[in-house]
Amino acid sequence: MHRLVLLRHGQSVWNRSDLFTGWTDVDLTEQGVAETRHAAGLLTQAGFDFDVAFTSVLKRAIKTLDIVLEEMDRMWLPVHKHWRLNERHYGDLQGLNKTQTAARHGADQVFLWRRSWDVPPPPIEPDDPRSAVSDRRYAGLGKAHLPRGESLKDTTERVIPFWEEGICPALRLGARVLVSAHGNSLRGLVKHLDRVPDQDIPLFEIPTSRPLVYELGADFVPLRRYFLTEGGGAEEITWPRRDGGR
Amino acid sequence: MHRLVLLRHGQSVWNRSDLFTGWTDVDLTEQGVAETRHAAGLLTQAGFDFDVAFTSVLKRAIKTLDIVLEEMDRMWLPVHKHWRLNERHYGDLQGLNKTQTAARHGADQVFLWRRSWDVPPPPIEPDDPRSAVSDRRYAGLGKAHLPRGESLKDTTERVIPFWEEGICPALRLGARVLVSAHGNSLRGLVKHLDRVPDQDIPLFEIPTSRPLVYELGADFVPLRRYFLTEGGGAEEITWPRRDGGR
Repeated sequence: MHRLVLLRHGQSVWNRSDLFTGWTDVDLTEQGVAETRHAAGLLTQAGFDFDVAFTSVLKRAIKTLDIVLEEMDRMWLPVHKHWRLNERHYGDLQGLNKTQTAARHGADQVFLWRRSWDVPPPPIEPDDPRSAVSDRRYAGLGKAHLPRGESLKDTTERVIPFWEEGICPALRLGARVLVSAHGNSLRGLVKHLDRVPDQDIPLFEIPTSRPLVYELGADFVPLRRYFLTEGGGAEEITWPRRDGGR
Repeated sequence: MHRLVLLRHGQSVWNRSDLFTGWTDVDLTEQGVAETRHAAGLLTQAGFDFDVAFTSVLKRAIKTLDIVLEEMDRMWLPVHKHWRLNERHYGDLQGLNKTQTAARHGADQVFLWRRSWDVPPPPIEPDDPRSAVSDRRYAGLGKAHLPRGESLKDTTERVIPFWEEGICPALRLGARVLVSAHGNSLRGLVKHLDRVPDQDIPLFEIPTSRPLVYELGADFVPLRRYFLTEGGGAEEITWPRRDGGR
């Protein structure tokens, strides 16, 4: 049995301001730091430990991981950072206020952008200062991989190769794995693990800093999945599940 | 030309208390955090940037690195942690007060333990709770590699393989390298790079959180080495050099 813990980063500055964030590299809020420390305490109390950790190249996920590792006295663990665990790229919406965008484009359109499976946001122009083109951390990607705006389907499709080539080998060796990432990259992983239908996965909400535990059997088939709650409790997840999300 | 920056961790709790630390995994003090932030500012002002970082598996060096990367907005850089960059293992002296130890064993003996090239400290017993035997982070080492107390020579000899196999390949690829480590693991590296005589290297003092810059030519032969100082200044280092250290 493999055990995998998925953790969405703590509240970020742009979560709080209700802005489309995507690949914008914003920091955690104080609340985000506090709720991440709390998550580390839940993991410790429930007897979790890890051998290796994976995260994105965005500081809200990296810092979330750093806080957990420090609180668990596991700063020495190997950490692998990869752009494929990044948040969904929100294209030309990045930096816009969600409410204002709904006022301009209509709530239905914004709902489609936010909670559909395969509708991408309007693409960002390569010469836009918000574009990742000039960001050194993505210099090795090449234009073919550098997104200009992703649907959840696009995000899922670029997360899966890292799951298969980066994370599964560690699990096969018996490592206990922690993944600190983002709402949509984790949705992509959950969809892949649990074969969640296209129409259901966009509505699956992963709260910030709430450990999502997967127990995996042979061929990484999920035997059980649950959110870790207070006092070592478990909020089991069953599919299909339609949480809303509007 | 390769550029390499060596950074000794900021002041630790046991630096402040004047205790032999070695592999004991103590945290930074507030002063250690502040002086590390200051070091990051010096690096930024002087136009330094990095592509990859290396550190030990001890939190005072890891946290020092994390602070520098955060201050320089480079949290996304790959970081490799390895026990070979750890501080010199101080054997049975770990946890003892330096002044009290001098009162008991004599100042000359303590000076030999602290500032000789090849005199090891008294060995720690494997069943001592301070020993690394039961520490999971060293589980992969095997007894042959797990030190019970090292001379500076011992430390140097286990640092060099990581220099050659871990760090040099990155430099050969053109990476700008930052190494966050410890007084004695960095002494070992400096000795190796500059062929410092055995009797001189123990007396070379690397202040906490003071960037030590190496410019390396072909075959990693040092062309220049200096401590980075305020306003982008440089305190050149020339050999032989006898700083004292008593």
